[in-house]
Amino acid sequence: MLGRLNHVGVATPSIDDAVARYRDVLGATQIGEAFDLPAQGVRVCFVDTPNSQIELLEPLGPESPIAKFLEKNPLGGQHHVCFEVPDIHAAKAELEGKGVRILGEPRIGAHGTPVIFAHPRDMGGMLTEFMETPREGAH
Amino acid sequence: MLGRLNHVGVATPSIDDAVARYRDVLGATQIGEAFDLPAQGVRVCFVDTPNSQIELLEPLGPESPIAKFLEKNPLGGQHHVCFEVPDIHAAKAELEGKGVRILGEPRIGAHGTPVIFAHPRDMGGMLTEFMETPREGAH
Repeated sequence: MLGRLNHVGVATPSIDDAVARYRDVLGATQIGEAFDLPAQGVRVCFVDTPNSQIELLEPLGPESPIAKFLEKNPLGGQHHVCFEVPDIHAAKAELEGKGVRILGEPRIGAHGTPVIFAHPRDMGGMLTEFMETPREGAH
Repeated sequence: MLGRLNHVGVATPSIDDAVARYRDVLGATQIGEAFDLPAQGVRVCFVDTPNSQIELLEPLGPESPIAKFLEKNPLGGQHHVCFEVPDIHAAKAELEGKGVRILGEPRIGAHGTPVIFAHPRDMGGMLTEFMETPREGAH
């Protein structure tokens, strides 16, 4: 089941500043447009590496889960990892069957496919997202 | 310059327990043998995803940098990300030329090629490793 490491979610107080760093310091050339994901309380921007992505996350308002993360880590930092799965409902059932707590129901994630999050306490302290692999031709 | 996301470094109090979770809960099938890297104070085990790797890190003794991380995060969690670069000395010079603090001199990392670490304060709060891409035929 362990699919592609789709992305590493990285919290930042400023997507603009982070994008400038990835572009000007780290030499990233494939950087998407930032967009709001109000249902998750975040503004999002994907930076491509040749094999994966960094998902930059900036809080949309003080209630954002990213705002709480930034209170503890003002500079930002690694927030979650995301693995692909072929079927989100099958993955949820399989994980729950193995005692993993899933936070809420599947919802549409930043790539437009359904995602779930597993509780860090059941994942070695690491907030872990699972996303259904985009179909061919999709983003 | 932004190369492959070679791996996400994940601290754990027990590589054995973490390997069991990746294998039995997450369905990983490509899991390397754990080995000690005394120069960095860590025991290491790589778990492959189809496109990248998770690098499990367990402290070798109380002086290990991972021991300090686990004091703050007893369950473990994301410790660093690692991007590949074609030439470690060129990368170090380029990063330093852009004001990024590099922690020490290049040393041989877990993949047998030279690595450097950039200071989290210059990398949006994220400890960032750069490793020279292994040559064809190498590990």
